[in-house]
Amino acid sequence: MTSSAIANALRLPPGPVDLTAIETDAAPGFDGKKTDGKAALYAMGGELADLQERLWAERTIDSERRVLLVLQGMDTSGKGGVLRHTIGLVDPQGVRITSFKAPTDEERSHDFLWRIEKGLPPAGYIGVFDRSHYEDVLIAKVRGFAEPEEIERRYGAINEFEARLVAEGYSIIKCMLHISADEQKARLGERLANPDKHWKYNPGDLDERAFWPKYREAYEVVLERTSTQVAPWHVIPSDKKWYRNLAVAQLLLDTLRGLDLQWPKADFDVAAETSRLAEESPVQ
Amino acid sequence: MTSSAIANALRLPPGPVDLTAIETDAAPGFDGKKTDGKAALYAMGGELADLQERLWAERTIDSERRVLLVLQGMDTSGKGGVLRHTIGLVDPQGVRITSFKAPTDEERSHDFLWRIEKGLPPAGYIGVFDRSHYEDVLIAKVRGFAEPEEIERRYGAINEFEARLVAEGYSIIKCMLHISADEQKARLGERLANPDKHWKYNPGDLDERAFWPKYREAYEVVLERTSTQVAPWHVIPSDKKWYRNLAVAQLLLDTLRGLDLQWPKADFDVAAETSRLAEESPVQ
Repeated sequence: MTSSAIANALRLPPGPVDLTAIETDAAPGFDGKKTDGKAALYAMGGELADLQERLWAERTIDSERRVLLVLQGMDTSGKGGVLRHTIGLVDPQGVRITSFKAPTDEERSHDFLWRIEKGLPPAGYIGVFDRSHYEDVLIAKVRGFAEPEEIERRYGAINEFEARLVAEGYSIIKCMLHISADEQKARLGERLANPDKHWKYNPGDLDERAFWPKYREAYEVVLERTSTQVAPWHVIPSDKKWYRNLAVAQLLLDTLRGLDLQWPKADFDVAAETSRLAEESPVQ
Repeated sequence: MTSSAIANALRLPPGPVDLTAIETDAAPGFDGKKTDGKAALYAMGGELADLQERLWAERTIDSERRVLLVLQGMDTSGKGGVLRHTIGLVDPQGVRITSFKAPTDEERSHDFLWRIEKGLPPAGYIGVFDRSHYEDVLIAKVRGFAEPEEIERRYGAINEFEARLVAEGYSIIKCMLHISADEQKARLGERLANPDKHWKYNPGDLDERAFWPKYREAYEVVLERTSTQVAPWHVIPSDKKWYRNLAVAQLLLDTLRGLDLQWPKADFDVAAETSRLAEESPVQ
């Protein structure tokens, strides 16, 4: 498995997590400024697209392999920006984005993983979860939407669920977009100051912000309990948007490289088909 | 409604259609060569992305508007290329691509529009149909999968269906990617000659190709019977890939411009929220 300097710097080591000790405006594993970072991201486009097409091509040989990128983070942390700038580099045909909002009544009547299962990407796809099953141990815990025992049960259920997916052919990339409270304040302020961005603002965002310390604690527990060998978490400093986009792209590239993707071999007689095409009756 | 030179040149006039009279390697409505065409496509990126974001933003005010791009064409005509190069210009978050293959047993047990309804884009999205309900009056007719009376019924059903969608807030862009039989032969030959492209080749493609004249006739009837005021067909000369990508992008851009998309106005008190943010207790 190829592992870049960025991936090595971002992969969460086992043990307790203290998010206040992880800088939000750093650029771990990357020696360079904003322009360098943007250039590095752009330079990945060709290889990302090539590898994605190979993954897509594997559908024709009934491969079960696929990628699942899980994006988590506080409001304004940039999940949408990653979708636009990083996922936007690859062929939209092979991408399946699933956004998870507050669960509907029907979804609430099932186990929390029921709607997650329905949002999983088919084989050959790069699936992206914009929020995910982790909301069920984050907002659900902070806001008390589930009992403590149920929250406790869910950590294990998530680990089993993800282990099963990996055994089935999924590569899972879990990213926590890590911003500071000050950076969120600045971003909310920008939305309020710019009429073109009012649609992105919701007074509820500020209510949620009041729970910042509780969310941080909830994230710390989640990161410790659900960062596993087969599906580790990456905490991505995200105050710098360019670094955030670059880091997610690098994790995606590393993952695709690690799959050693080959073009499927022909399951037909190439010479015979070539003759058939050459000798066909004229078609008008 | 803004209408570009390209759109004006490609919109099908009412009446009988003779596809042999429509050049496949022309570039109607565009004065320029390949490099100019590629530059023109690239130059559209910013405005396309801006307008798409406005459409996406309208979800927050419960707008029902959305775009549906229907891509039809013979094998190798470039539906995948349009997805990559044209749809790839906009935010993947707001795109919903639905590919229609041979119907499953379940799908066949319902009316032909049943699975189409399920593949429609939600409000705010640009939906793309890679093949569509038109297969049910194309391959279904050529290969006799439905009786002639049923095929006849379907033209009317399609027109009613699309009129209903337009009344509900859809903008429909229908594109027939028009290539010559010789161009298809060349493209199939390239796939056979390049091991990296063998996965794209299927011996069935050549069987289907033998029906080329019947497909042309079936397309001509479809184009005449289902090009309506609210959902006209565009026949896009597609031997030149750069022109094909540019033309579809231009049709999409014209459509988005025609919607006169505005950023939604705030439904909250901007001044009050700004004060609330400024005066909040410190968050760590």
